[in-house]
Amino acid sequence: MNISGTTRVFLILGDPVAQVRAPEAFNHLFAKHGVDAVLVPAKVSSKNLGAFVKHSLLAENIEGLWLAIPHKTPMVDLLDQCETQGRVAGAVNAARRNADGSLEGALFDGVGFVKALDHFGIPVPGRKALVVGVGGGGVAIATSLAARGAGRIALFDSTPGRTAAVAAKLSAEFGIDVVSVASPDPAGYDLVVNATPLGLKAGDPLPFDVARLDASTAVVDILMKNQPTPLLRACHARGITAHPGFEMMVQQVPEYLSFFGFDAIARAVQVDASDVRALFAAP
Amino acid sequence: MNISGTTRVFLILGDPVAQVRAPEAFNHLFAKHGVDAVLVPAKVSSKNLGAFVKHSLLAENIEGLWLAIPHKTPMVDLLDQCETQGRVAGAVNAARRNADGSLEGALFDGVGFVKALDHFGIPVPGRKALVVGVGGGGVAIATSLAARGAGRIALFDSTPGRTAAVAAKLSAEFGIDVVSVASPDPAGYDLVVNATPLGLKAGDPLPFDVARLDASTAVVDILMKNQPTPLLRACHARGITAHPGFEMMVQQVPEYLSFFGFDAIARAVQVDASDVRALFAAP
Repeated sequence: MNISGTTRVFLILGDPVAQVRAPEAFNHLFAKHGVDAVLVPAKVSSKNLGAFVKHSLLAENIEGLWLAIPHKTPMVDLLDQCETQGRVAGAVNAARRNADGSLEGALFDGVGFVKALDHFGIPVPGRKALVVGVGGGGVAIATSLAARGAGRIALFDSTPGRTAAVAAKLSAEFGIDVVSVASPDPAGYDLVVNATPLGLKAGDPLPFDVARLDASTAVVDILMKNQPTPLLRACHARGITAHPGFEMMVQQVPEYLSFFGFDAIARAVQVDASDVRALFAAP
Repeated sequence: MNISGTTRVFLILGDPVAQVRAPEAFNHLFAKHGVDAVLVPAKVSSKNLGAFVKHSLLAENIEGLWLAIPHKTPMVDLLDQCETQGRVAGAVNAARRNADGSLEGALFDGVGFVKALDHFGIPVPGRKALVVGVGGGGVAIATSLAARGAGRIALFDSTPGRTAAVAAKLSAEFGIDVVSVASPDPAGYDLVVNATPLGLKAGDPLPFDVARLDASTAVVDILMKNQPTPLLRACHARGITAHPGFEMMVQQVPEYLSFFGFDAIARAVQVDASDVRALFAAP
């Protein structure tokens, strides 16, 4: 890592921002591949997001932004353009200044999720999926499952009324069967995803009844902390295939790189992400 | 250099910015001393300076700015506070956000110059100095010579009328004899400084008549490029003591560090600047 006057600069915006792992991973990749670019953190409050985004990108060599919590959703309103996934889910992971000066955003959470399913050998097309929890992560995942051709998607959320609009939007956008369900009963699905925060706090109930899972169902728990999560432990105890969210994060890395024009690094990571996995796994 | 979510960020603003050497020097020092901070370039046009400065510092961990050409002078108007040298010279090298949110600037060019004289063993108090060229660099140098107690300072500039206001300001501020002179004749001075750009372009005349220098006069040519400069070569041919501007840049490094609160690194560089010299000297 040799920062000079010629270095291209990217910022990751969050509040807080201390916990983000992206600078370590991407700066490692830039240095490894001899690319003169750097990703640095910027702790920006929600109140200041609009002004900061608009004016920081006035610098010609500050080319784009990574968005961390709580900016992924409000950033959408600041964009000139957005690809389908971000537009439908109403959240983005990144934004770049295009050559014409326009600000374009993209969401990689869902793409990372289906690429992680590929990595695990879990096919999506035609399958019946249940997504439990339709906050930002759940909506992104449901959107990508729909885009990838899932046969049927059921959405559950403990907050009443939260799923109906999402189901209608995804059905209309992708022309597949997306429904709201009144219970997180996992029986009868090929794939069940926990996208709730249940499992973060000691004493949380499981997000659904593991005893009701079909033996052949695959489970993904997107929680990053407390590995293995209570849900993963309960699934493993029953001999059910269950994966943590870690690979979803790894699989997003080439998406960011391509979006910002670092295609050669993106291809290299797609072939071998072992160093990215090691960096994200480090304490 | 290990940038993470906790890293403190500083920006160096210039247009162009590709030529700045500060990121290499300061990031080396941060890494060497285990400080979690980084200096990155931002190419900001004059038109956008005010908006960029105001809004980039909205990020809590973006704590301060280095100013490169052409922003050193216009930055003064954006400050809430400024120390004497910057206020008198009307230019700053750096600005920091204080704990109370105010923006404070400081100029180190002149301080670096007199510290370089210390390094060369050239005493200032009571001496007669001629400063040729009173653009940003010349004014900063004259200000620091006045602050350090020079006996008499003569200012020459090829643009008529440029020196009078500076001379009056320095006389009033520091209570010493500062005068405008109509010719750059170097005879009779203890110290003669070239602060014009003469010597940058092939075929430039020398800034003053080297044959008229007293044998004991010390000369400094603050030009950084084309070393040794034509002036330095002409002085050396006459056996006159003459130094390039390089050390002036080196001696500013601890000033920046102290200003931004990195006192331990500043002290270490003050004791041994050999690695800073090597970094700045590298092609």
